[in-house]
Amino acid sequence: MAKKDFSKKALALHKKLGGKITVSSTVQVRNRSTLSLVYTPGVAAVSSLIARSKRKAQAAVARDYTIKGKTVAVISDGSAVLGLGNIGPYGALPVMEGKCALFKTFANVEAFPIVLNTQDPDEIIETIVRIAPVFGGINLEDIAAPKCFYIEEELKRRLDIPVMHDDQHGTAIVVLAALINAMKVVGKNINQKNKRIVVSGVGAAGVAVMRLIKQFAPKAAIVAVDSVGIVGRGRKDLNSTKKKLITEKIIVANEGGDLAKALIDADVCIGVSKPGVLTAEMIREMAQHPVIFAMANPTPEIMPDEAKKAGAAVVGTGRSDFPNQINNSLAFPGIFRGALDNRVTKITDAMKIKAAKNLAALVAYPTADKIVPGPFEKGVAQAIASAIR
Amino acid sequence: MAKKDFSKKALALHKKLGGKITVSSTVQVRNRSTLSLVYTPGVAAVSSLIARSKRKAQAAVARDYTIKGKTVAVISDGSAVLGLGNIGPYGALPVMEGKCALFKTFANVEAFPIVLNTQDPDEIIETIVRIAPVFGGINLEDIAAPKCFYIEEELKRRLDIPVMHDDQHGTAIVVLAALINAMKVVGKNINQKNKRIVVSGVGAAGVAVMRLIKQFAPKAAIVAVDSVGIVGRGRKDLNSTKKKLITEKIIVANEGGDLAKALIDADVCIGVSKPGVLTAEMIREMAQHPVIFAMANPTPEIMPDEAKKAGAAVVGTGRSDFPNQINNSLAFPGIFRGALDNRVTKITDAMKIKAAKNLAALVAYPTADKIVPGPFEKGVAQAIASAIR
Repeated sequence: MAKKDFSKKALALHKKLGGKITVSSTVQVRNRSTLSLVYTPGVAAVSSLIARSKRKAQAAVARDYTIKGKTVAVISDGSAVLGLGNIGPYGALPVMEGKCALFKTFANVEAFPIVLNTQDPDEIIETIVRIAPVFGGINLEDIAAPKCFYIEEELKRRLDIPVMHDDQHGTAIVVLAALINAMKVVGKNINQKNKRIVVSGVGAAGVAVMRLIKQFAPKAAIVAVDSVGIVGRGRKDLNSTKKKLITEKIIVANEGGDLAKALIDADVCIGVSKPGVLTAEMIREMAQHPVIFAMANPTPEIMPDEAKKAGAAVVGTGRSDFPNQINNSLAFPGIFRGALDNRVTKITDAMKIKAAKNLAALVAYPTADKIVPGPFEKGVAQAIASAIR
Repeated sequence: MAKKDFSKKALALHKKLGGKITVSSTVQVRNRSTLSLVYTPGVAAVSSLIARSKRKAQAAVARDYTIKGKTVAVISDGSAVLGLGNIGPYGALPVMEGKCALFKTFANVEAFPIVLNTQDPDEIIETIVRIAPVFGGINLEDIAAPKCFYIEEELKRRLDIPVMHDDQHGTAIVVLAALINAMKVVGKNINQKNKRIVVSGVGAAGVAVMRLIKQFAPKAAIVAVDSVGIVGRGRKDLNSTKKKLITEKIIVANEGGDLAKALIDADVCIGVSKPGVLTAEMIREMAQHPVIFAMANPTPEIMPDEAKKAGAAVVGTGRSDFPNQINNSLAFPGIFRGALDNRVTKITDAMKIKAAKNLAALVAYPTADKIVPGPFEKGVAQAIASAIR
């Protein structure tokens, strides 16, 4: 379908639906006796039970008797929506609704979209803390880096429900799963000193990917490359997020140069950056059997056929029309399914690594064209959920 | 059923339901082609359409393509929940959920509960302004007086969607409808200088009731009585809300004394106060064919049989186990149905009076035992909705 026709079709479907989620009642209120149970006076028994509980226990009691036990908020300020950039809350709403529909479809998680009329980090944090009593989890979405790191950290500290910025951690889990299987395909062990992983793009996804890989494969050398070049100690222009990658020894810090230089003898290149930054020449300089994840959306850092022609052993993208779609929709539904079922209050790195391993294990015999399951394969959400406990 | 058994039954039902509302997807995402329409890349067409619109027009475009066009927030800080008082957000949640279930049942309005982890008026306002982009209307609920007046006023000023504190205006509409029909029953015209209406209770409901009746029957004398006595110019203890009732000439301001004194020769007594404050003796001092609305919940200001024995011509309460249940569930679903359907940005006094008249007109032949429709009668929501345009 031509791009214009496809857009037309998407618009028409959205207009017809008038919202991709719907709220309905779990109880048919058809007579006075039901009315008196679900509303006044009967509901007072539930409210009193909660109110009589100790302050710290009220949230747990509410989970048993209200939607808090089953509902996740999908929250964005619209500052970094898809490839569209900072388009604000109204522009973000259709995307958040779509995410809520996927939550329900893939993991039977009830999710409600919240888009915010502010882009100030502290106002975002305050607002989410204030509305948190309704929810059993908070999925942050499409919030620009670097403020997304601060917002997530603060919310984790202040709330007793799991908070996850999906652009970071959903992506990191699926990338790690893909990496685990790609290494099987090329017959390498990534957790060795002589292994080199280059990450192009040091935004929300890139930072989380590097941090999770470092947990999984502490011996491997990780090199970060942003739009200026290799992130290293010699740079004077680094923001605090990038500085922390150095001080916490997540990345190799004594190099300089551009992406081409970074990729010399690299085993893996993970692109979460921009279309076209990766070239066939660069791939030809990588180590034997290079693995390329070119996940810029919708146009990858390099097209898969070109990467393969240049020698890439395994290629993944974010797109559904090529093999190996590395997409966070494989992770987020199961993560919150597990978090709700097990009343998890924090999603830890250990859980994320276990989730990635479970996801990778769903592909019994990884091949160059099949390193991750497809989104509609059975058992994906359950494999992830079982790691979140 | 004994009270204890009833509470047990209500608790068991709530635990079984685990939330009285449920969020589901309006579209079955079963294959890649649907996925690509409702999520990336298709959803980008909708987001772009919104983002390309002028800033002020974005909300209107979002209404056409997202849940904004059909969804209302039911918001409370838990500061004045039912008869339970200030029990906080978790205690308030079951009530807000119940309200959402009634919205759906009675008027097919999709409503989502938000309970707030703050009770500061300015923080409440800020928070609601920040989450407002998702919603087509805001129903404020169970927020204590007098801050509820300030919060509602500010939100009305700052938002381009209808905001209504239901404890105020839902109640006022139904009381006015009941009053219109009660006057038919006793054969009086309330809009006359010699008619006297006493309102016991000057909280959220009382203030809104007085203000709406004054619009409907400007000639009638309205007397306000709070826990101290008649609200008049002589009092030094009045808050700004009560002072405004005087300066805006909503109430008679030159009297003093207690409820008993206020009721001498009164035609109507509207109780939105406390159980037991109204006595048979007081009713015997009222004008001929007195009308009593004793709406304290769950125990009225005077029990209906006692009021009738003392000479009351018409008696209404808030309870479903007596005739004439004056309950705001008759009003709120239809109000937001009409507001959403007609994209109304403010709910005006004229609309409220029309809604009350329409509601009253549903009872073709009002009698002492039938001045308002029951909640399950057909056409109630539609009668109200048709006034909100």
